[in-house]
Amino acid sequence: MIVEMRTGATQDEVNGVIERAKALNLEIQLNLGTDKTVVAILGSNTGQLSTDLFGVLPGVEQVVRIMKPYKLASREFKPHNTVVSVNGIEIGGKAIVVMAGPCAVENEQQLMEAARIVKQSGAQILRGGAFKPRTSPFSFQGMEKTGLELLARARERMGLSVVTEVVDPHDVSLVSKYADILQVGARNMQNFALLTKIGKSKRPVILKRGFSCTVTEWLAAADYVLAEGNSQVILCERGIRTFEDSVRFSLDISSIPVIKKFSHLPVIVDPSHAAGHYSLVPAVAKAAIAAGADGLLVEVHPNPKEALVDGLQSLTPSDFARLMKEIKSVAGSVGRSF
Amino acid sequence: MIVEMRTGATQDEVNGVIERAKALNLEIQLNLGTDKTVVAILGSNTGQLSTDLFGVLPGVEQVVRIMKPYKLASREFKPHNTVVSVNGIEIGGKAIVVMAGPCAVENEQQLMEAARIVKQSGAQILRGGAFKPRTSPFSFQGMEKTGLELLARARERMGLSVVTEVVDPHDVSLVSKYADILQVGARNMQNFALLTKIGKSKRPVILKRGFSCTVTEWLAAADYVLAEGNSQVILCERGIRTFEDSVRFSLDISSIPVIKKFSHLPVIVDPSHAAGHYSLVPAVAKAAIAAGADGLLVEVHPNPKEALVDGLQSLTPSDFARLMKEIKSVAGSVGRSF
Amino acid sequence: MIVEMRTGATQDEVNGVIERAKALNLEIQLNLGTDKTVVAILGSNTGQLSTDLFGVLPGVEQVVRIMKPYKLASREFKPHNTVVSVNGIEIGGKAIVVMAGPCAVENEQQLMEAARIVKQSGAQILRGGAFKPRTSPFSFQGMEKTGLELLARARERMGLSVVTEVVDPHDVSLVSKYADILQVGARNMQNFALLTKIGKSKRPVILKRGFSCTVTEWLAAADYVLAEGNSQVILCERGIRTFEDSVRFSLDISSIPVIKKFSHLPVIVDPSHAAGHYSLVPAVAKAAIAAGADGLLVEVHPNPKEALVDGLQSLTPSDFARLMKEIKSVAGSVGRSF
Amino acid sequence: MIVEMRTGATQDEVNGVIERAKALNLEIQLNLGTDKTVVAILGSNTGQLSTDLFGVLPGVEQVVRIMKPYKLASREFKPHNTVVSVNGIEIGGKAIVVMAGPCAVENEQQLMEAARIVKQSGAQILRGGAFKPRTSPFSFQGMEKTGLELLARARERMGLSVVTEVVDPHDVSLVSKYADILQVGARNMQNFALLTKIGKSKRPVILKRGFSCTVTEWLAAADYVLAEGNSQVILCERGIRTFEDSVRFSLDISSIPVIKKFSHLPVIVDPSHAAGHYSLVPAVAKAAIAAGADGLLVEVHPNPKEALVDGLQSLTPSDFARLMKEIKSVAGSVGRSF
Repeated sequence: MIVEMRTGATQDEVNGVIERAKALNLEIQLNLGTDKTVVAILGSNTGQLSTDLFGVLPGVEQVVRIMKPYKLASREFKPHNTVVSVNGIEIGGKAIVVMAGPCAVENEQQLMEAARIVKQSGAQILRGGAFKPRTSPFSFQGMEKTGLELLARARERMGLSVVTEVVDPHDVSLVSKYADILQVGARNMQNFALLTKIGKSKRPVILKRGFSCTVTEWLAAADYVLAEGNSQVILCERGIRTFEDSVRFSLDISSIPVIKKFSHLPVIVDPSHAAGHYSLVPAVAKAAIAAGADGLLVEVHPNPKEALVDGLQSLTPSDFARLMKEIKSVAGSVGRSF
Repeated sequence: MIVEMRTGATQDEVNGVIERAKALNLEIQLNLGTDKTVVAILGSNTGQLSTDLFGVLPGVEQVVRIMKPYKLASREFKPHNTVVSVNGIEIGGKAIVVMAGPCAVENEQQLMEAARIVKQSGAQILRGGAFKPRTSPFSFQGMEKTGLELLARARERMGLSVVTEVVDPHDVSLVSKYADILQVGARNMQNFALLTKIGKSKRPVILKRGFSCTVTEWLAAADYVLAEGNSQVILCERGIRTFEDSVRFSLDISSIPVIKKFSHLPVIVDPSHAAGHYSLVPAVAKAAIAAGADGLLVEVHPNPKEALVDGLQSLTPSDFARLMKEIKSVAGSVGRSF
Repeated sequence: MIVEMRTGATQDEVNGVIERAKALNLEIQLNLGTDKTVVAILGSNTGQLSTDLFGVLPGVEQVVRIMKPYKLASREFKPHNTVVSVNGIEIGGKAIVVMAGPCAVENEQQLMEAARIVKQSGAQILRGGAFKPRTSPFSFQGMEKTGLELLARARERMGLSVVTEVVDPHDVSLVSKYADILQVGARNMQNFALLTKIGKSKRPVILKRGFSCTVTEWLAAADYVLAEGNSQVILCERGIRTFEDSVRFSLDISSIPVIKKFSHLPVIVDPSHAAGHYSLVPAVAKAAIAAGADGLLVEVHPNPKEALVDGLQSLTPSDFARLMKEIKSVAGSVGRSF
Repeated sequence: MIVEMRTGATQDEVNGVIERAKALNLEIQLNLGTDKTVVAILGSNTGQLSTDLFGVLPGVEQVVRIMKPYKLASREFKPHNTVVSVNGIEIGGKAIVVMAGPCAVENEQQLMEAARIVKQSGAQILRGGAFKPRTSPFSFQGMEKTGLELLARARERMGLSVVTEVVDPHDVSLVSKYADILQVGARNMQNFALLTKIGKSKRPVILKRGFSCTVTEWLAAADYVLAEGNSQVILCERGIRTFEDSVRFSLDISSIPVIKKFSHLPVIVDPSHAAGHYSLVPAVAKAAIAAGADGLLVEVHPNPKEALVDGLQSLTPSDFARLMKEIKSVAGSVGRSF
C-alpha cells in the first residue's frame, strides 16, 4: 500500500502513519520526495487490508493499493489453469464447451425438445432456469421444484449434464440434488450468503459477473467460494451496463484476456443476455471464442416466438445448429478443439 | 406498447402482431405511416408484459414500452405521498429525518458512545451494521447476533429507534426482533427472495438503490415488498457507479425529483457511501436536502481513525454536530422543518 | 510515480527501471517488499510524465501515478480561490451569479424578451447560443454571426453581460468582439486547438465538463487555457453520461466539493442540460447551490413551447422568477449572498 | 414519434398535440387506450425532428422516437455495403485490411523502421500521428507539418498508403496533401466544424467513435460527412468509457454486428487504444475479426520501450508479425480473406 502525504504534512503526521503500520505488524519504507512524502507499506497481506486504515489519518492525501484484494482466485496464488471436470467434460482445457438451452423451463415438452436440439447440435451441457429472478414481481418467476425435476428427467433421457440457477442460500442443497453445475446469476454475484453456502457444497459453480462489477470484484467474489474449499469455479462474462442502448448489456470482451492474465479460473461467455437480440448473438459468440473464452452459455428455444422469458435473445434450433458449426471453425483458428 | 414494423414488412407479418395481441386479450390500433407500419398495443397491464412477446415476431423492428414496469410504487397508483411512521417519527412528512451511526457495530463502548453522539446532535434514528456484506471474504463480516443485541441495548438506553441491515432471507424474523427498520443494502436491491420475505414481515424497510440500477428498476424492486402488503418502504439513494474516480460512487442527485415525480414513496439519501470521503459528505448531504430528500442516512463514528469499516467516510462527532446545524438551515430554506 | 514489479522480477529488470529514472533525471527509492519490489519515482514534474515510460519496461506489473496530471488548475499551485471579474460581476466570490437565457438565439423579439425576463428576475448575465453544435446535420445549427449581433444589441439595451459558445478555433476573435464570456461546450472540452486559442485571447471563459470526462481530465483541459496566460477560467458542471435513463445526463453533484478541494477555479452548474426536463431543473439548481457552486447557467425562454432547440428543458418566465427566489433562500442558508 | 399523454390529460391537451403535428405537416393517428391516450406522429422526416417539439406541450408525459436520427448512414437509405477504395485497397469488401504503425511520428528513423515492419508483415496501410491531442498541455503534441512530410516520404519509399489524424478544421486541406485517409479522433467525433470540412474535402475518412457516444450518435456524426457529398466514411470502434478499470477503454464488441445491421458503412477496430496494454491487444484484435469487423488499426513500434506516446499499448515487431498470422487464421474461419 502506498500512502501519499499532503504537501506540507508535518513530521508528526508522518509518524502517525508509521505507528499505525507498526501496530498492524507491517513494515514501512519512507520516501521523502521533493514535493511530497510517500510511505510504502509492505507485507504480504496488505491486499486484504482496507486502505481506509491509513486514509483516515491526519495529513494523508490518498492511499493506493498495490496488492489486489483477491487472493485464492489469482494466478499468483495458483499459476496453472484450473480445469473443472463435470461427468468427464473438462471446462478450462483445450476443448471449448457449449452449454445451451432455454432461459426458463416452461413445461416437459419444451424442455425435452430443447434438450434434443442441444444434444443433436453437439453441445455438452443443458441449461434451463427453474428459479427466475425477474425485475417485476408480476412476471413469471419460474417452475421452481417442478422445473428441477424436469431438468433431472432431461438429463437422464438425453445423457446431458445440467446447469441451473440457485437464488436462495437455503435452496443450495435442494438444487444440488438435481443439477451437475450450480449457477449464480449476475444479480447475486455479491450475495455473499449464497456464495458461502455454495462454497461449502463443493459442487461446480458458474459465477456470472455482476453487470456493474469490476473484474477485480468478480475475482474477490470467487474468493468467497474458493475460501470454503470449493475450487470448481467457472467464471461467466455476460455483459456490463454501459450508456450504449442498442444492446441489453455491453459484452466486455477484454475481460477474457484480463481474466486469463490475472486468474487461473476458466471463463465462459453468455452472448445471449449481453446482446439481448438473437440477430447479434452469433457475432458475439464467435468473438468470445476468438478472444480465448473456454466455452459458451447460449439460449436456444424450440420455438422462441412462444417463449415465456427472453424469447428475443433465444436462437432457433436451425440458427443454433449453424452457430455450432461456425464456433467449431473459429475454435480451430485459435488452436482450440471442439 | 408500440410495435414498430420493419420497412417493407408484409401484411402477414403485421397480422402476426395483431393475432398475438388478440391472443393476449389486448386491443390494438394500426398506424400505416408513409415509411413504416406501427402497431399500438393497448391495455392497462402492458407494463407487466415483456416486450419480447412482440419483439420475436417476424417483421418486427423494435418494441417500445409506454407503460412503466412498476405499478404499486407509482404515483399513478397512489397519488398522495406515503408517510412511514416509526415510533412516532414520520418519514416522508414535512420534517427531515436523520439516521446516523457507525458503519459497523464493533463493540459495546463504541456503539453506546456513537448512540450518545447521535442522540445529542438531534438525530432520531441510530444506524449500525451487524451483518456486513464485504467485497472480500477475508474482511471483517460484522458481529452478527451479538451486534443486534447491542443495538437493542443502545435503543433502550438512549430512546432511539434503530435501523440495521438484513442480508439473508432467513434472518428477516431474527433481525425484526431487534430493529425498528430493516435495511436492504445496494447489493441486495434485486435479491427478490429477501424482498419477498421483508414484504411478508410488514416491518418498515429502507430499500437502498443498487449501484447500477435505474430508478425504474428500483421502483420495480419496491413493488416486490409492496406486493406482499407491506407499504412501509423508504427508498435510499446512495450513489451509482460511473466512470468518475474521485469519489466512491456518484450520488445521483436528480433521482430525488425523479422519484418525487413518479412515486409516492419517501426517499432519503446516504451521502457517506456515495462520497466515500468525510470531507465531501457535508456538501452532498446539504445538496440532498435542497433537492427535496426526506432525510439522511449518515455515518458517524466516535473515533473514525479506529473504525474497523469505512472509517474514511465517517464523520467525527464534532463534524457531525456542525453538519446537523447546517442541515437545519438548508431544510428551512426549502420549507422543511427539522 | 510508483512502479510495482512483478512477483519474481529479476535484479536486471529492477535495474532497468532505475536506469530509466536516472535517464529522466528522477530520483528513486527502492522498496523490497516480502512479496514484491516496488520502486518509487520521485520528482516534482512526474505528474506530467506518462506512466507508460515505466509500464513498458520488462518485469513491470503496473505503474501508479501519485502526482496529478494537471498543475496550473490545482490548489497546490495556487492555494487561494480565483475570482473571475466580468464588468464588475465577480464569479467565485461570496455572491452567487446566475446566467440565464434561451438555448439558442432565434430572432430579435425572442432574445429581447428573454433578456428582459433575465434582467427583471435579477440574473446578471445573459446566455444564448449563436453557434449550435447539434447531433444531426439536419437540425437547426444556430444564427451564427447574426445571432452574435443580436446578443450585442441585447447587452446594450438591457445592461447585461453576455456569454455565448464558440465552436471553431478560428471564430475566437469574432466571438470575442460580441461576448463578455466565451463558452466551451461539453463536446469541445478536449478540443485542444480551441482551448489554446481561447487561452491566447485572455477573455473569460466557461469551460463545460465533457459528459464523459473525469474531474481530473477537466482540470487538465483547464491547464490548456491557463498555460497560455489566461487565468479567467470558470468551470461548469453539466451532467455526465451514465446508465440512468430518466434524465438526459446525471448531474455529478459531488464534483462541486471535489473541485473546491483540488482546484482554485470557480465552478458553476448547468441544471438544464443535465436534467433535460423543466420539471426537474429547480431541484437540481437548489442542490447545486447547497453543495457550494458559485453560480448557475439556466435555460429560460419567453415561450418554451415555441423554442427551436431544447424547449423541454427551458423554464418559463414565471417558473424562472420562482426559482430565483428559492435560490436566494438556499444561498443564504449556506452563507452565500445573492 | 409516439406522444404519450398523461393519465387524465384533457381533450384540449390532446388537441394541442394534434395541432402542432398539423402545423409541421405531419399526419397523426390517435390511440385511446384504457389508461392513456397515445398520439402517433407519422411522416418520413420525424427522425430529424426534436422530440421536444411535442414534449413541451401541456399534458404530455413522454415522447418516444421511432425513426432514428441518422439518415444517410442507415441501411434503410442504402441497402448495399459501402466499399471505400484507397489506391486499390478495398475497405468493406471480402478482404480484411490492416492499418498499422506508431501512435506518433517521432523522427525519420523511427517512422521508416515502423513502415518497413508494417510492409513486411503484410499490412496495407501505415498509420502515424503528426498532430497529437493530449490530455495535458505539458505532454508532447506531435511533430505537426514535419511529421506529415515524414509520412509522405514513408509512403513513397515503402509503397504504403497513409492515414493520419486531423484535429483542426483549418488543417484539412494541409493534411489532405500528405495523407490518403484522414482520421477523426474519438475526442473530435462530434466536432461538427471538422466533420463538415472533411465532408467537403471528399477524402476517405476514418471516423473514430467518441468514447462516450452511442452507436446512434456515431452514425448521426457520419451523416455530417455524408451530407457534404463525401461517401467514403470508415467507422472505427476504439472502446467506450465504462466503470471497468483493468483496461483503458472497454471495447464494445457488439457495436460491430449492430453497425452491420443498421448501417452500410465499413467498420474497423482499434484494439490498441481500447486495451491500453500490449498483452491484451491480440485477443481483442482476433475477437474483432471474428465479430465481423472489416479491418484493424493497430499500434506497432520498432521499440515500444522508447516510444514517446502510448508505448504500453504498442506491439513489438515480432508480436505484430505473430498477430498478423493469427488474424489470417481467424479471418479465414469466418469466411474473410486476408
